[in-house]
Amino acid sequence: MYTDLKEQAWRANMEIPARNLAIYTWGNVSALDPDKAVFAIKPSGVPYDRLKAEDIVVVDLDGKVADGKLNPSSDTPTHAQLYRYFLQTHSAIRGITHTHSPYATSWAQACRSIPLLGTTHADHGFRPVPCTPYLSEKAVQTAYEKETGLLIIETLKNPSIACPVALPHKLHGCTGKGACFDEALNPAECQMILLGGHGPFTWGTDAEKSVYNAAVLEEIAKMAWVCMTVNPDFAPLPDYVIQKHYDRKHGKNAYYGQGSKNR
Amino acid sequence: MYTDLKEQAWRANMEIPARNLAIYTWGNVSALDPDKAVFAIKPSGVPYDRLKAEDIVVVDLDGKVADGKLNPSSDTPTHAQLYRYFLQTHSAIRGITHTHSPYATSWAQACRSIPLLGTTHADHGFRPVPCTPYLSEKAVQTAYEKETGLLIIETLKNPSIACPVALPHKLHGCTGKGACFDEALNPAECQMILLGGHGPFTWGTDAEKSVYNAAVLEEIAKMAWVCMTVNPDFAPLPDYVIQKHYDRKHGKNAYYGQGSKNR
Amino acid sequence: MYTDLKEQAWRANMEIPARNLAIYTWGNVSALDPDKAVFAIKPSGVPYDRLKAEDIVVVDLDGKVADGKLNPSSDTPTHAQLYRYFLQTHSAIRGITHTHSPYATSWAQACRSIPLLGTTHADHGFRPVPCTPYLSEKAVQTAYEKETGLLIIETLKNPSIACPVALPHKLHGCTGKGACFDEALNPAECQMILLGGHGPFTWGTDAEKSVYNAAVLEEIAKMAWVCMTVNPDFAPLPDYVIQKHYDRKHGKNAYYGQGSKNR
Amino acid sequence: MYTDLKEQAWRANMEIPARNLAIYTWGNVSALDPDKAVFAIKPSGVPYDRLKAEDIVVVDLDGKVADGKLNPSSDTPTHAQLYRYFLQTHSAIRGITHTHSPYATSWAQACRSIPLLGTTHADHGFRPVPCTPYLSEKAVQTAYEKETGLLIIETLKNPSIACPVALPHKLHGCTGKGACFDEALNPAECQMILLGGHGPFTWGTDAEKSVYNAAVLEEIAKMAWVCMTVNPDFAPLPDYVIQKHYDRKHGKNAYYGQGSKNR
Repeated sequence: MYTDLKEQAWRANMEIPARNLAIYTWGNVSALDPDKAVFAIKPSGVPYDRLKAEDIVVVDLDGKVADGKLNPSSDTPTHAQLYRYFLQTHSAIRGITHTHSPYATSWAQACRSIPLLGTTHADHGFRPVPCTPYLSEKAVQTAYEKETGLLIIETLKNPSIACPVALPHKLHGCTGKGACFDEALNPAECQMILLGGHGPFTWGTDAEKSVYNAAVLEEIAKMAWVCMTVNPDFAPLPDYVIQKHYDRKHGKNAYYGQGSKNR
Repeated sequence: MYTDLKEQAWRANMEIPARNLAIYTWGNVSALDPDKAVFAIKPSGVPYDRLKAEDIVVVDLDGKVADGKLNPSSDTPTHAQLYRYFLQTHSAIRGITHTHSPYATSWAQACRSIPLLGTTHADHGFRPVPCTPYLSEKAVQTAYEKETGLLIIETLKNPSIACPVALPHKLHGCTGKGACFDEALNPAECQMILLGGHGPFTWGTDAEKSVYNAAVLEEIAKMAWVCMTVNPDFAPLPDYVIQKHYDRKHGKNAYYGQGSKNR
Repeated sequence: MYTDLKEQAWRANMEIPARNLAIYTWGNVSALDPDKAVFAIKPSGVPYDRLKAEDIVVVDLDGKVADGKLNPSSDTPTHAQLYRYFLQTHSAIRGITHTHSPYATSWAQACRSIPLLGTTHADHGFRPVPCTPYLSEKAVQTAYEKETGLLIIETLKNPSIACPVALPHKLHGCTGKGACFDEALNPAECQMILLGGHGPFTWGTDAEKSVYNAAVLEEIAKMAWVCMTVNPDFAPLPDYVIQKHYDRKHGKNAYYGQGSKNR
Repeated sequence: MYTDLKEQAWRANMEIPARNLAIYTWGNVSALDPDKAVFAIKPSGVPYDRLKAEDIVVVDLDGKVADGKLNPSSDTPTHAQLYRYFLQTHSAIRGITHTHSPYATSWAQACRSIPLLGTTHADHGFRPVPCTPYLSEKAVQTAYEKETGLLIIETLKNPSIACPVALPHKLHGCTGKGACFDEALNPAECQMILLGGHGPFTWGTDAEKSVYNAAVLEEIAKMAWVCMTVNPDFAPLPDYVIQKHYDRKHGKNAYYGQGSKNR
């Protein structure tokens, strides 16, 4: 039972060390089965080099174990909240990844949203990567991991609460899509977020795509950092380039790849 | 048919992951057969670890498929425009590479041309690595990939339109070969360019040399960035060192290597 | 005799190259047997790729060789002093690691304590990583390696002597747990330290955990550096997040992992 | 004939890619036989993955080929000049390495000598790593590679001509061994140098030690750069720590390692 779902989650979790997205046990991927309303997730504290497909834990959308002998990831309630939200409005999302990859985590620690500076970013989204504010003291003390999910959802719905986008002083404020958040973020279009003071969460149409997005975010975070130090007067990519790049991969008339609309 | 050309293109494409020049599908190499007026190029959206020589697509100089079952790279029209230009005036060029390698891409995002700071750079060119301006809105909306090729050509012909060379404030302006563009760039001598807001394009006398140049550019981009932060008063290499280094590898009396004039 | 202890120390030493924590011979791990009052440590100047379990040297708490044919690490007196101190008050600590890992060593050279900027750090401690001052001239000239151990102990007992925590100008001074040292550091809770001008020392409940902490410190050091350059106005993590993260892994009601209180 | 010498040079050259000190053909190691007054060196332009021991070229101290079918490295006259100088006064040196390793090369491009900031550096020298000035126009145009050797020798003899040591503004000038050059540098004690605008040259008691020093220099260069950006008010290591560290490895009463005075 759940053999395929566990296998899927296991394979995606093994991409974390393969892509250098976390050392030791510092990341987890989950895979959703929307029909059964359960997801498979990495067990807590098990290093990747000892992880087997049968170790994967299956939980329901309250985070209660449905199958498996080990404790699920301590981040399970965050995944659960996100899936509940996605299922309501964006049912195509079936995988979530959390890592402590160094460049993305550095941005999260810096409490700065990542401006959209190039087409590598625009191929995967048309807004800055938002960084949530810190959780409130009350949220941390009541139900930390669940509240983490709720804060991510709140930031998507109302990105004006996000940390500032890192921009040269003269550009602060809304100077185009790549620099600002002037409307709610649709999780089908914004598949990457930074949790302020913590690190990245990403998602996608399956577990593998969510970890793909984690690797993309790490690359974007590194390049944005180098770019800022090469040219302190850097600017966001013009809106018309953003739109073109996003659309050629994800738009109605997408023409990237071998026929399928997404990646 | 085209077996050799496909094999050549495939081998060069496999250098992209081997040299850490792009993750997933983020780069492509093409190989030209000037007699048949066709080139072989990576299929769109196929990851390197699943890429086989028979997947390579052969297209003509209009980008129309001449052989192969898959869609060619979405960047095919850029390659086609560049080959058309090279064939008119610089027929020795038979390979083109595009990647999203992190340091070169960071410079492209910063919209800064890379100054010539050392002999590693001078061994491969005697001018800064130009960074094109952003494409115009009209160019993006009409024929994006074709216009990308045309912008690269225009920047080579008239490099005064390129983004500024990154230099300390006191040095801005033309202070020698390593710092400025005061004449058209011959593609046989300038085999690397950055597309503003996007990333690097490189070329060479065959597909393998074009990907060699992509790896060289990544190294140059990294070292220029570190150099600038080690010494904010950095200066371009003196002209007479540039000329000597370029000539000992590529000049009339080149004496580097085992007898052949070029690497 | 001591076969297990040597095997334990050997395996932990081999993690140094496996985790890229030092090149050549630039690091050493020791494993304590508290009942026999001896510890096993890497021999001096032997590269990891030639190191065998039988090469490991066993010494007593005066650093005198109890078993083994080779000279023990020149850092042996430092390990000895630390074990003596830990045994008096924190008997659970049974492993110590010293490396020259590049990011942690850069912080030690900068004579700056590492502020607690994110949950990756809070998962492993709730204070900045202290950096000791330089050793005094007298200490260096009398018994350098022993005095190194004593300085680490003195800094733990009285961290007000540590190098300043790297913080934006406006934040200097004690602005919360992540930014200051207002009480003695318990080595069971603070398992990482930087030796000013030299590099990192870490410890843990066994040799393997001490080298785990060395890898954690390297990651924390890298991320703190990138964070500072992404946002010069970076701030330490709020106290309530620090406490929560530390406690969920190490507190009375720890719930991370598979049942054991520590990692 | 020369089989051992070639084998020695080949093995040391293969360390260049193994230690990530250069890509493609961008580095070379030579091994001296002082009795026969010849040295073995990498052939010009041959990539490491195709290099065999029998490809190594043996030349005399005028750089004339004594054995081998291929052209020797274009840097051969630099090696020859250095060996001539070392043989006169420091006969223990029998290996030389040149690479384009990225961090050391970035410092060379920045025209800055590397201050001695920590014990990693002090373990291998007690002065900054000098960076020569650029070669003069005349030197470049007459006998470039030979003049490169002569400039290195001149800088060792009279380091006051070296590029400034990178230091915070308030510290510029001679503030101790780690910050200044107040006397000639003995090549037996200073085994690393940067050629301004070009890259590192290192040497040692055999070919393997010279490439060891190239790897050490790359690590020192990286850490000095990170240190400077972590703390813009960084300072050189105190003289008494420098002396202690250098002496415990290389002094009369050296006690590092297994009995031999040098590593």
